[in-house]
Amino acid sequence: MRTSPGMTMVIDGGLPTGAFTDLITSHGDYIDLVKFGWGTALVTRDLDRKAGVLRDAAIGFYFGGTLFEHHLWTGRLDEYLDLVRRTGATHIEVSNGTIPLDQPGKAEHVRRMSQYRPVLSEVGYKDADRSARLTPAQWVEAMREDLDAGAFMVVTEARESGRSGIAQSDGHLRRDVLDAVIGNVDTERVMFEAPTKTLQVELITALGPDVNLGNIAAADVLGAETLRLGLRGDTLLHVATVPSGQSAGI
Amino acid sequence: MRTSPGMTMVIDGGLPTGAFTDLITSHGDYIDLVKFGWGTALVTRDLDRKAGVLRDAAIGFYFGGTLFEHHLWTGRLDEYLDLVRRTGATHIEVSNGTIPLDQPGKAEHVRRMSQYRPVLSEVGYKDADRSARLTPAQWVEAMREDLDAGAFMVVTEARESGRSGIAQSDGHLRRDVLDAVIGNVDTERVMFEAPTKTLQVELITALGPDVNLGNIAAADVLGAETLRLGLRGDTLLHVATVPSGQSAGI
Amino acid sequence: MRTSPGMTMVIDGGLPTGAFTDLITSHGDYIDLVKFGWGTALVTRDLDRKAGVLRDAAIGFYFGGTLFEHHLWTGRLDEYLDLVRRTGATHIEVSNGTIPLDQPGKAEHVRRMSQYRPVLSEVGYKDADRSARLTPAQWVEAMREDLDAGAFMVVTEARESGRSGIAQSDGHLRRDVLDAVIGNVDTERVMFEAPTKTLQVELITALGPDVNLGNIAAADVLGAETLRLGLRGDTLLHVATVPSGQSAGI
Repeated sequence: MRTSPGMTMVIDGGLPTGAFTDLITSHGDYIDLVKFGWGTALVTRDLDRKAGVLRDAAIGFYFGGTLFEHHLWTGRLDEYLDLVRRTGATHIEVSNGTIPLDQPGKAEHVRRMSQYRPVLSEVGYKDADRSARLTPAQWVEAMREDLDAGAFMVVTEARESGRSGIAQSDGHLRRDVLDAVIGNVDTERVMFEAPTKTLQVELITALGPDVNLGNIAAADVLGAETLRLGLRGDTLLHVATVPSGQSAGI
Repeated sequence: MRTSPGMTMVIDGGLPTGAFTDLITSHGDYIDLVKFGWGTALVTRDLDRKAGVLRDAAIGFYFGGTLFEHHLWTGRLDEYLDLVRRTGATHIEVSNGTIPLDQPGKAEHVRRMSQYRPVLSEVGYKDADRSARLTPAQWVEAMREDLDAGAFMVVTEARESGRSGIAQSDGHLRRDVLDAVIGNVDTERVMFEAPTKTLQVELITALGPDVNLGNIAAADVLGAETLRLGLRGDTLLHVATVPSGQSAGI
Repeated sequence: MRTSPGMTMVIDGGLPTGAFTDLITSHGDYIDLVKFGWGTALVTRDLDRKAGVLRDAAIGFYFGGTLFEHHLWTGRLDEYLDLVRRTGATHIEVSNGTIPLDQPGKAEHVRRMSQYRPVLSEVGYKDADRSARLTPAQWVEAMREDLDAGAFMVVTEARESGRSGIAQSDGHLRRDVLDAVIGNVDTERVMFEAPTKTLQVELITALGPDVNLGNIAAADVLGAETLRLGLRGDTLLHVATVPSGQSAGI
């Protein structure tokens, strides 16, 4: 059924193992990547079983950038890489959303981590005020720098709330940032965090059904797919097309 | 345990198959109808299994009005009716929440679709501003027209957010519309979409525990039932009664 | 993995039986108590099976204070105690969040109910305006009175929304109440209802990772645990420590 080549990354904020397996079994066709949100991996009893479910379904996975930051901040990156290897994580996320790591420092870690796995590099801060002070030009420059450093994709921060990073406090996209990104970065290499329907609709409307969407909640996997396909009111008139020469039967 | 004859319609926004089965097995006693929300049916891998679970539990089901609108808009109503027949859907929802179909045109489709299944006909638009411009008299007139056209029930739009249609942007009911409906339409034939606790409480308080409630989230099935029964703080003093001649032990 | 001695109480708002079992199996290590929210127990078909799952996992459980209030209000406390005995509930919650029961009257019920089970006694009202009128001194006095009456713990009301009781309508803690509680009550004997991440972060920041947290949603069990451990952006810099003599690798 799926026709869209746009990537869908689902965030797991701590599903029980049965629910996780049920999700992947039922909706795995619409999921390209799973992110074990922030540091949940360290308190997930059945992490190896979850990893196995994803391996069987040929779905990639990685750990939230906060786990990388936590290990960097506490001087234990070697333990982080051990975890990646042991679980078979397919990607690494590098970010500086919380700890005081500047952009050039982050790009350097993108370069280093790319030796081990394809890197998703996040741009934007978790703190709403700090993110709001980033100009469109700074967003573009950081994304280009990370891609030049070898990042597989760059990720625009929006948290789980959809009210920070590339999103405004009212939940809508920062259009100035979006326009700058569209004009200056290859959007096939950008994953837009879009945890809310508002953001999903605005991104699909602006970039088309193939936009890469991240931080999709487990409960919204089918919902996001229907938005891509014009099967929901919010995008029906944008995406669904009336066959030529028809009056649509109305 | 259930004493209320009021109907409860649950919206499935895309539950995995295991979770759906679990829901119906555990809480099926409190569910009269399931609506596969908007166009999710088309991206649900195990739709036939979900339909089977409902058949076994003697619970009716149908597809969201948006799926009807999508097929009407793209000139493929025959495919829509094929889907209804193949899955054994027990009802059809007719709506004009998104596409440019006027009220008389919708009533005509209510008439046609009633040949195939009992029809739930929705009144109100998904767009908040358009809905807000509908006067109470227009709501009543549309509901009567749809019932006259043969609708089994009419449904008052409130979306999944509870902030459009018969709901205001602040999440409360439009009292003017509710009062007009109560005064002019047989409310046993009205299904009020009530996806939030705020709306559920306001409707139960205004219409009593037997009001027909729709768009109840899977996670809220027991919650809505407790509201009907006065087993939650919001309705306890309205619904629960102190035996006469008792001081309630306080 | 868990190092925190702080209690975590999870509220079950009506999970299907399979989902409930999955939750306890996967995340039971991080759950100390389960509260069957408000009066959901009376409409839970498999209540005995849920109770059995908790017994096997050595997790305590009890019924929401509203169920106590409902039985008190309708003059049927004997039926309430029968339910406690039959299900093997390990605790009793006494509250006056909804019915007109004054503080001394509540303390008297704390005393009586303590004969049967350890009592969690709730302070604060479900109605936001009534709660807002309670002064910090009144919160402290009520908590002390309940503890003096034999309560095992006192619970600060915040509902499921986190916008009433000890929380303000904007979702943040009432700092005046929190400061008065910290200064005058043994916080090891206080369970703070904290159904939102905002409240969890503010409490962990103010009281440390061992604060007792209540009304944690099933979906947030791992999330709350990561906040305690500094594995989420919101608390990383507060809780996680850089080994001395290290530059944190940045």
